[in-house]
Amino acid sequence: MTLRVALPDAAMVARLAPAVSKDVDLVVWRPGDPPLDGVIDLLVMPYTVAYDTLQSLGGQVRHVQSQSLGYNGAEQFLPPGVTLSNAIGVHEGPTAEMAMTLILASQRGWPDVGRNQDSQKWDRPMWPGLIGQRVLLIGVGGIGREFAQRIAGFTVELTRVARTARDDIHGIDELPALLPAADIVVLAIPLTDETRGLVDSAFLDRLPHGALLVNVSRGLIVDTDALVAHVRTGAVRAALDVMDPEPLPDGHPLWSLPGSLISPHLGGAVQSMNTRVDPLVLSQIDLLLRGERPKNIVIE
Amino acid sequence: MTLRVALPDAAMVARLAPAVSKDVDLVVWRPGDPPLDGVIDLLVMPYTVAYDTLQSLGGQVRHVQSQSLGYNGAEQFLPPGVTLSNAIGVHEGPTAEMAMTLILASQRGWPDVGRNQDSQKWDRPMWPGLIGQRVLLIGVGGIGREFAQRIAGFTVELTRVARTARDDIHGIDELPALLPAADIVVLAIPLTDETRGLVDSAFLDRLPHGALLVNVSRGLIVDTDALVAHVRTGAVRAALDVMDPEPLPDGHPLWSLPGSLISPHLGGAVQSMNTRVDPLVLSQIDLLLRGERPKNIVIE
Repeated sequence: MTLRVALPDAAMVARLAPAVSKDVDLVVWRPGDPPLDGVIDLLVMPYTVAYDTLQSLGGQVRHVQSQSLGYNGAEQFLPPGVTLSNAIGVHEGPTAEMAMTLILASQRGWPDVGRNQDSQKWDRPMWPGLIGQRVLLIGVGGIGREFAQRIAGFTVELTRVARTARDDIHGIDELPALLPAADIVVLAIPLTDETRGLVDSAFLDRLPHGALLVNVSRGLIVDTDALVAHVRTGAVRAALDVMDPEPLPDGHPLWSLPGSLISPHLGGAVQSMNTRVDPLVLSQIDLLLRGERPKNIVIE
Repeated sequence: MTLRVALPDAAMVARLAPAVSKDVDLVVWRPGDPPLDGVIDLLVMPYTVAYDTLQSLGGQVRHVQSQSLGYNGAEQFLPPGVTLSNAIGVHEGPTAEMAMTLILASQRGWPDVGRNQDSQKWDRPMWPGLIGQRVLLIGVGGIGREFAQRIAGFTVELTRVARTARDDIHGIDELPALLPAADIVVLAIPLTDETRGLVDSAFLDRLPHGALLVNVSRGLIVDTDALVAHVRTGAVRAALDVMDPEPLPDGHPLWSLPGSLISPHLGGAVQSMNTRVDPLVLSQIDLLLRGERPKNIVIE
C-alpha cells in the first residue's frame, strides 16, 4: 500500500524523506491549501495553528497529528470520521524547563536585573533565591513529572498535589491547608471545567505575603482580575508563560506591574522541537503502514 | 572563660543571642570602628567588605570569619597571628543556582524576552532551550558539585572537567578536544595563576558557533577583550555573574551587545543567606568555647 502523508512545510519533508520507505508519499500541504486529489492518510498540523482550520478537512483526511499537547476547542471543528492525536512527549520537558526558568528568573531578580542591564546600573540588592523555598506543584501529569525531575536538585521542599491523593501526593481538596505554607506555586494541570478559575481571590488570599505564582499550563486556570489585584498590592508575585487573555493586550497591568514576569506562551517552543516531533511522526507512519491505529489519539 | 565575638550588625546579634551561652559576649563591631578594650576572640566580617579593612585588626582580633568564599587578596592585609576562615558551605548552592538561572534565561531568550515585556510586545520566536544541549562544566569543587546536582534533571549531556582527569572527569589539558562539542560552557573554578586568562581567543575559537559561556567564578578567568570580540560577531554568547572589571563601567559593550546577559555579581547573595551563615558562626563559637581551632581556616 501507499501512504500519503501531508507535512506543513518542505523542511519537514526534507528531514523525514530519508527515513521513510518508498511506499510513503510525503507532500507539503496545510489546512486551507487547495484540495489534493485523493485521500491524505496522515496530516501533520502546522505548529500553533488554530483548530478551526480542521473544519475544512472532511472527506479528505483520515488522521490528524497535532504538534501541540493541548487540544481543547478541537472537538467542535474535527469532521466526523477524522481522528486527532496530540503531541505527547514533545513539549512536557521544555514546558517544565520554562517553569524552572520563570521561577529562577523571578527569584533571582528579573525583570529588574534585566532593566538594570539596559540602564547599565550595577545594583546588588539581595533577591529571594530558590534554595530552601517551599514549592507547591499542582499537577503530576507529563509536565508535572518533568518539573519534579528538574527541581529535584535545587534543595527545596517540594509538595505535590493531584486531583486525588495517593502515596506522598496530596489531593486538590487539601489546597486550602497547603497554600499558607507555599513560597512558590506552580500550575501544571490541564484546563477542565474543574480547574477553570481554580486560582481565584480565595486561593491567592491563602498564600504567604510575596509568594510567587507560576503558570505554564493555561491562562483560564487563573482569575486574571484577582491576580492583578494581588500583584498590585505586592501580596503575590506572578511569573506567567500563559495568561488570559492571550496575546496580553497593550496596557495590560501584568506587562508592567512590579512583581510580574511575562513570557509570551513560549512553553514548548524551543529550537530542538523537531528532534522530538520527527520521531513521533515517523512512529505514526510506521503504525499506519502496518495497518495499526495511530497512538496518542485524543479525539475520535 | 568568656568569649568575645564581634558581629557586623545588631540584626545578627539578635539572631544569635538566643543560641549562645552566657559565656559568650556578642558585640556589634566592624573593622574601622573605634578599638574596643581587650581582645576580640572571633570577628565576623561584614558581607562583601574589602579585605584591606583587615589591616587595622592587629593585636585586637584573634580569628576572622569571612562571609565570602573567595579570599584572594586577603593574605597581604591579614596581620601576623590572625587567622581567617572562609564561608565554605554558604554560597556554593546559591552560586550554582545563579549559573542555572543564567543558562536558562539565556537559552530561553532573555534579556530579549524582558525587553519585549517592557515594550509590551508579544513576540514568539523559537529560542534555543536547554533540553538536549551539551554542557561542559569546568570545575568540580563546591560550586561545581552543586551545579551538577542541579542540572542533573534537565536532560542534557553533561561533561565535567577538573585540573586532573579521574574516573569520568576529564583533565583540563583535554579542553582543546572538548570545546568543539560544547553548546554551553560553565566556569566554576577558583582564580589562580593557572586559571587566570584560561578563556582566551584560542579557547573561544574552538567553541561551536553561538555557544554560551557562563561565568560564576571570577572575572579574570576570562580575557574580556577576547570575549567582547567573539560576542560582537555572534560567535559566542555570554551570561556573566562575574566579569573583569567589576563594576562593569558605563558604556562597556557587555552591557548592551546582543547575546550578552549580565548580572552584577549576585552569585551567593540571596535573602536566605543568614540561614547558612548563622549556623557556621555558631559552630565556630562552639569550637572556640571548647578550646579548639576554628574550622575552614584558609590563611594563618
